[in-house]
Amino acid sequence: MTTVSLEQIQSPADLRQLDQRDLPELARQLREFVLQSVSKTGGHLSSNLGTVELTTALHYVFETPHDRIVWDVGHQSYPHKILTGRRDRMGGLRQQDGISGFPKRSESEYDDFGTAHSSTSISAVLGMAVASRNAGIERQHIAVIGDGAMTAGMAFEALNNAGVTPDVNVLVVLNDNDMSISPPVGALNHYLARLMSGRFYATAKNVGRAVLQHVPPVLDLARKFEGHAKGILTPATLFEELGFNYVGPIDGHDLDALVSTLSNLRELGGLQFLHVVTRKGQGYKLAEADPVLYHGPGKFDPSVGLVTPTTKPRPTFTQIFGQWLCDMAKQDQRLYGITPAMREGSGMVEFEQQFPRRYFDVGIAEQHAVTFAGGLACEGQKPVVAIYSTFLQRGYDQLIHDVALQNLDVTFALDRAGVVGADGATHAGNYDIAFLRCIPNMVVATPSDENETHLLLTCCYQHPGPSSVRYPRGAGVGAAVDQALNTVPLGKANLRRQGKNLAILAFGPILHEALKAAEALDATVVDMRFVKPMDEVLLQELAQSHQAFVTVEEGCLMGGAGSAVLEFVSRDALVMPVLQLGYPDEFIDHGDQKKIAQDLGLDAAGIERSIRERFSSLLEA
Amino acid sequence: MTTVSLEQIQSPADLRQLDQRDLPELARQLREFVLQSVSKTGGHLSSNLGTVELTTALHYVFETPHDRIVWDVGHQSYPHKILTGRRDRMGGLRQQDGISGFPKRSESEYDDFGTAHSSTSISAVLGMAVASRNAGIERQHIAVIGDGAMTAGMAFEALNNAGVTPDVNVLVVLNDNDMSISPPVGALNHYLARLMSGRFYATAKNVGRAVLQHVPPVLDLARKFEGHAKGILTPATLFEELGFNYVGPIDGHDLDALVSTLSNLRELGGLQFLHVVTRKGQGYKLAEADPVLYHGPGKFDPSVGLVTPTTKPRPTFTQIFGQWLCDMAKQDQRLYGITPAMREGSGMVEFEQQFPRRYFDVGIAEQHAVTFAGGLACEGQKPVVAIYSTFLQRGYDQLIHDVALQNLDVTFALDRAGVVGADGATHAGNYDIAFLRCIPNMVVATPSDENETHLLLTCCYQHPGPSSVRYPRGAGVGAAVDQALNTVPLGKANLRRQGKNLAILAFGPILHEALKAAEALDATVVDMRFVKPMDEVLLQELAQSHQAFVTVEEGCLMGGAGSAVLEFVSRDALVMPVLQLGYPDEFIDHGDQKKIAQDLGLDAAGIERSIRERFSSLLEA
Repeated sequence: MTTVSLEQIQSPADLRQLDQRDLPELARQLREFVLQSVSKTGGHLSSNLGTVELTTALHYVFETPHDRIVWDVGHQSYPHKILTGRRDRMGGLRQQDGISGFPKRSESEYDDFGTAHSSTSISAVLGMAVASRNAGIERQHIAVIGDGAMTAGMAFEALNNAGVTPDVNVLVVLNDNDMSISPPVGALNHYLARLMSGRFYATAKNVGRAVLQHVPPVLDLARKFEGHAKGILTPATLFEELGFNYVGPIDGHDLDALVSTLSNLRELGGLQFLHVVTRKGQGYKLAEADPVLYHGPGKFDPSVGLVTPTTKPRPTFTQIFGQWLCDMAKQDQRLYGITPAMREGSGMVEFEQQFPRRYFDVGIAEQHAVTFAGGLACEGQKPVVAIYSTFLQRGYDQLIHDVALQNLDVTFALDRAGVVGADGATHAGNYDIAFLRCIPNMVVATPSDENETHLLLTCCYQHPGPSSVRYPRGAGVGAAVDQALNTVPLGKANLRRQGKNLAILAFGPILHEALKAAEALDATVVDMRFVKPMDEVLLQELAQSHQAFVTVEEGCLMGGAGSAVLEFVSRDALVMPVLQLGYPDEFIDHGDQKKIAQDLGLDAAGIERSIRERFSSLLEA
Repeated sequence: MTTVSLEQIQSPADLRQLDQRDLPELARQLREFVLQSVSKTGGHLSSNLGTVELTTALHYVFETPHDRIVWDVGHQSYPHKILTGRRDRMGGLRQQDGISGFPKRSESEYDDFGTAHSSTSISAVLGMAVASRNAGIERQHIAVIGDGAMTAGMAFEALNNAGVTPDVNVLVVLNDNDMSISPPVGALNHYLARLMSGRFYATAKNVGRAVLQHVPPVLDLARKFEGHAKGILTPATLFEELGFNYVGPIDGHDLDALVSTLSNLRELGGLQFLHVVTRKGQGYKLAEADPVLYHGPGKFDPSVGLVTPTTKPRPTFTQIFGQWLCDMAKQDQRLYGITPAMREGSGMVEFEQQFPRRYFDVGIAEQHAVTFAGGLACEGQKPVVAIYSTFLQRGYDQLIHDVALQNLDVTFALDRAGVVGADGATHAGNYDIAFLRCIPNMVVATPSDENETHLLLTCCYQHPGPSSVRYPRGAGVGAAVDQALNTVPLGKANLRRQGKNLAILAFGPILHEALKAAEALDATVVDMRFVKPMDEVLLQELAQSHQAFVTVEEGCLMGGAGSAVLEFVSRDALVMPVLQLGYPDEFIDHGDQKKIAQDLGLDAAGIERSIRERFSSLLEA
């Protein structure tokens, strides 16, 4: 009878005191803890259930934190957080002042590199390994990366560079669950599937067990095992061509196999590549059956599972986009929908079903996504790239050099613009207005509600050049959406409230907070609709009849929409004080979206307060 | 006796009238024309001498412009330009109002996609191929990509996506010359070298000749040939694992082999990958011997070759950086120098020789370069990423998410900031101030001369967080550089001229034009040194004693340094008119740097003129 208990494990050092035979029981408790914990807080579930044994084995075998582990993407790091002293803090996961849903350097000495965007781990680990080599420190550096993340070009760049870097200890653990957020796509995944298929996988697994369990993890025997296993089965894998020693695939839920293999690899050092096969949602039947549904659920009762809500919630901006995409695609054969591995998150499930030949999930490949769209546009097609604001940062050069410079007709639907809530600073869509409006030819639109999103998508789609429409995570105020594909004039703002003295220029859904604030102030309010081109005619008119402008936006102040207003005011030599409201120059942590807006003074009360502080004399006059 | 003459070829249709036996003579004339032409205009030489036969064969076999060809990077497209009706315009290459040094859609119907930044071709071609497929158009889509460009992640992303895209005609021609601008690095290049080495290459070539020259290019036989050639030699290449049919390597200077093989591949359709081996500088002994030297020469006498200038020119900003890097590396063991395949262009030849273990050419891999630096910084090292402003666009997400968000100590040395001259809009470093200053934690420095570059590099390097120092292409005013590693206070500006009424705030080398303009105006001039953090104390003081600000910068107006000044003025409610001078909101074509500055009103005369127009009353008062 075992006495092991998860509660004893305050750090990996405690874990390493355990007998290897106790690990399966610990893993069982760890899995149960993950399930119970996530069901109370919401968060990522499937991926974390899949990495329980791998995490346990890594901390059991390696001397963390001396040895480095970087969790690619990092949403699979909950077991790691629990084993590294943060079990008690899991109740505050992804909540304001609670721990992050991703590894974070400031949170723990065990979080060697902050992750969240995909495919950074091998680059980071290679940098660490070079530093250790040059300093003469004996250390292991481990990147744990999913098969989806492996398809991104950045991972390939890192492998390509690592493969020729001498004398570094880098272990890449490919966590192959054939399942990124969207089902993985691409030739590499087909290749991995071939490596895993049929006899090969079964045999390797058996060979691994037979050989590894009864020999000490010494260099020669380990080498013999590998040569043996690979000699039989395949001449050389793609990873070997790039300079790594490929081992696997092994069963990522078999702790004995994991511990033995990792111990061997630890002794080997150098460039090692371990192919581990796991199952997303492992150990929780409902998640195993539908890992996509349980990728990032809200709170739920584990004994019941996720329940379809009886009242239909307001549609999200994402859903509005998804519906628009289908509606427009019906009218226009030239429309293509492109997503870099975010079919669900970008609301394209329906579009894929209706228009499979015009739907492209290109994998986690933002660079390619943008230029692929450019190629389509060269042939007279009208591609729509659906992408989170934060991920467009990955395709920035392609947007400039391949699309905007050639003035190609590509529409960017930017989801998750502004603060995103629980995912925090890594996913914040705070910079897109600043980094897009400085690019010639780009149109930048900021719809304020659901119907405006519909209108501005149509307007930007019809514009025969590059354009972007940014909208936030979640739902808007619930504006009814036109059934028809109506549009608005490009670059024209919409006067929403006629007041006096002050004109509030609103960019995006924050318009509704501005409207509330304006009541008490009797201010004019404009839904600006476009950051670029800006409605300078209206601004000129307003300048005649008002004494100050206030700009409000859910984006960074530096270089944002407010700055565009400043540039116009300055250029036209208007004598017009301007108050800019938006995000301050700092990274904004995870938390509730509404609460964050409140804290930043970007709700109605905060806007009114800021205006009264700055323009007290004006309001009294 | 042959009568073929290059002058007869007004378009590829003329070329296709020739007998195949006349192609070598045509290629000889084409090579001679390239050499003579480039020796008169300057431009890329080695790469174009290497693609003479390949270009000839492609246009001979394929029905251009119906079939699409995208030239990756595109600096090897001179033979293509000459054969597609632009022979007479080669004398104006890369000069203002002349043709571009890269393919450009607005220039010719034969330029299917504008290129210049590396590794975009496969993505673009795949987009075109999907459009053709869906429209039912029978067409070939060809990407010609070098082995250096193939190492970029973006190329891998495109291959990965192409490999699972059904029913598309995509031919990737790998132009393997084992030579990008810097010698290529990385595991992929080692792999390609293995494919080419020894018996394999020789045999494949012979097999190709023997089989191909005597059979009609029909489907079955071609398939048989490929199976045969590959069956003997190698089980499956990396490109086959990704879903392509791999053919090669073949000799890229053998027109018979090229024409036969391309004809076969044309018939095959689908996903084809042709490995062609060429030699940079082919046919010009001096360039063959030193292709790096002849990569992008200025004007020269072909019979003599490049001559070392007898008078030593002023050092470029690039050279100042290179010297600083060596000096600082001597003092500080923690310094690492990282370049994404731009050793020569970034001035790091000397550094590599002196500090080989701290020098990293990571390949054409900007994403990886930045995060690799982040990994080094996590281990207490102090990496310096030397990168062109325009190429940092490729690593933008990594700069935000991996470096700035974690406040890691990485210094970015941004070369080629502002207008770059002959390379034109694709290479313009016009947006970095706007896209960097909106990112929290980033320091943005704009040195005005050689010594300021030295000082600000030291200052930014010593700052324990992310920072950037931007400097332009070419030489500055010739300021003497301190021998010691001196520094300046972070975020402090430097008052250069005390005048009255007007204060000109200069960012970067344009300071010297501002100083000249200020003489006539008796204006105050400040070398701002930093865009971020900005010297707000000094601005506050100047606002007390002046009546207007003028900002001058070599960067985009939208969101640029001038906008940062506007934000400050507005935030502090200063009643201060501001005139912003910088680049307008348009892509700026190639031409002479000085002439472009003049045309944009950014020389001393233009600055003075703009100020007089805007502030006439102020100056008269």
